[in-house]
Amino acid sequence: MAGDDRRTVSVVGLGPMGTALAGAFLENGHPTTVWNRTASKAGDLVARGATHAATVSDAVSASTLVVVCVSVNEIVRKLLSSLDDDLSGKAIVNLTSGTPEEARETAVWAAEHGADYLDGAIMANPRHIGQLETMLLYSGSPVVFEAHEPTLSLLGGATHVGTDPGLASLFDAALGGLAWSTWSSFLHGAALVGTEDVKAMAFAPIAAQWLAAVAGIMADYARQVDDGHYPGDEETLEINAAAMDHLINASRAQGIGVDLPNFLKALTERAIAAGHGSDSFASVIEAIRTPSA
Amino acid sequence: MAGDDRRTVSVVGLGPMGTALAGAFLENGHPTTVWNRTASKAGDLVARGATHAATVSDAVSASTLVVVCVSVNEIVRKLLSSLDDDLSGKAIVNLTSGTPEEARETAVWAAEHGADYLDGAIMANPRHIGQLETMLLYSGSPVVFEAHEPTLSLLGGATHVGTDPGLASLFDAALGGLAWSTWSSFLHGAALVGTEDVKAMAFAPIAAQWLAAVAGIMADYARQVDDGHYPGDEETLEINAAAMDHLINASRAQGIGVDLPNFLKALTERAIAAGHGSDSFASVIEAIRTPSA
Repeated sequence: MAGDDRRTVSVVGLGPMGTALAGAFLENGHPTTVWNRTASKAGDLVARGATHAATVSDAVSASTLVVVCVSVNEIVRKLLSSLDDDLSGKAIVNLTSGTPEEARETAVWAAEHGADYLDGAIMANPRHIGQLETMLLYSGSPVVFEAHEPTLSLLGGATHVGTDPGLASLFDAALGGLAWSTWSSFLHGAALVGTEDVKAMAFAPIAAQWLAAVAGIMADYARQVDDGHYPGDEETLEINAAAMDHLINASRAQGIGVDLPNFLKALTERAIAAGHGSDSFASVIEAIRTPSA
Repeated sequence: MAGDDRRTVSVVGLGPMGTALAGAFLENGHPTTVWNRTASKAGDLVARGATHAATVSDAVSASTLVVVCVSVNEIVRKLLSSLDDDLSGKAIVNLTSGTPEEARETAVWAAEHGADYLDGAIMANPRHIGQLETMLLYSGSPVVFEAHEPTLSLLGGATHVGTDPGLASLFDAALGGLAWSTWSSFLHGAALVGTEDVKAMAFAPIAAQWLAAVAGIMADYARQVDDGHYPGDEETLEINAAAMDHLINASRAQGIGVDLPNFLKALTERAIAAGHGSDSFASVIEAIRTPSA
């Protein structure tokens, strides 16, 4: 992209994640200005060539692109309130974890001060920063995203998920649920086969291969969800519910807990009660959308 | 493998799955003998070159390898009881869905009659039979599995999961839980981002990419489970529980149900209460193993 010849970048906040972000910019030859409340945390980065700004305002002045990554959005607001009123020409990319509402509020603040704004979510641990397969989600103006994508891509795979600045946080929450739920059921499975002395490390590669198939079917379900039509040609909620009984019974027989399969069965039964017994598993979304009594 | 020069195979049970199994053998040049209670279901296969046996006993006599795939194991037992007492030299591969106990009982019956026995679980729909990436799990004697692996591999990727004949069914149940749980949370996520007019088909590829990362971490968790040690270097249950609140709050704010995140939070809290607050998410297995009061 034109103009992306190793421009100066500023990174505000040098916890483990902010430090990793600044490190990735430095490694790729970007002059990097950093700021942290506790200045000593900048030591390693300064040794690697970073410039330590005395104030947040100095850090923001140093670069067009300002990446903010602190512990909570309250601190983001506090830091921003110390800045000049006119931030035109600046692009603030807020990678602090938070809620969609916080992202939208900060976007409004940025607009009032003339700054471009992107909100982002880092779907990884600090040690994964800088790897192509690491997922970072961004939301806000697509024009701003495109302008800074080459630089942001140094942190990991950069995906723009929508214009609403709250979307990166909303995706973050949704993907968190996917991770916890998948891991919980993997752990349930590992506990189940573990009762017969199968090692979790023997179960894991089979589970991983299976997950690839599960992800493939997810794409079919996505189409069904968008169509609002869940054809039960190959599997139905009734059939799935009966198979869930196998899992409940097997878990009980092997002496482990049944909370997870019971939860899945109850969710499925709720969709069946709503008339989806002959529909595919994707129809469970109808039960998910409706808060239970 | 020596001796696997397109030997005759018999398939007992011609529902949609049994028909697909027989079709895969035929397609690969194996002389195939089929039997079904309702003979008319054999029509298409006979037109493709299969031989229809008049009785189950005839079908079993026709081949060394006998694949059984009917609706429930009660029918398997009924069919087998009609056979000769001496089945030495035969290998019965039971792909009927069932419980570990049923598999073990049928294995005992087969041993008493001198037959080799494998139990199997087909992790796919009939239309996926014959594809390399289709997963079929087998359990029972590894020697018997190896002897018939080349033929069984025509049905899809053949994985031997252990000597205990009940293991294929136990893996089947465990992997079912993984699928339902992953799909439920994908659907929760699709419902969540859908409240902001993001299409499920736009969420699906991001979710699929994320699942690959989730599967990678699963392998780390497997090692932790086998070690019985869950280092919380990068994430802890306390941190995960706090992030779950984000998902609960976001789901509530967007007006969808909170059953799934509430379930995940409660499971996590149970592991925290058991002393794993500073451990990684893998430590949730300790709560899963313990039936709740």
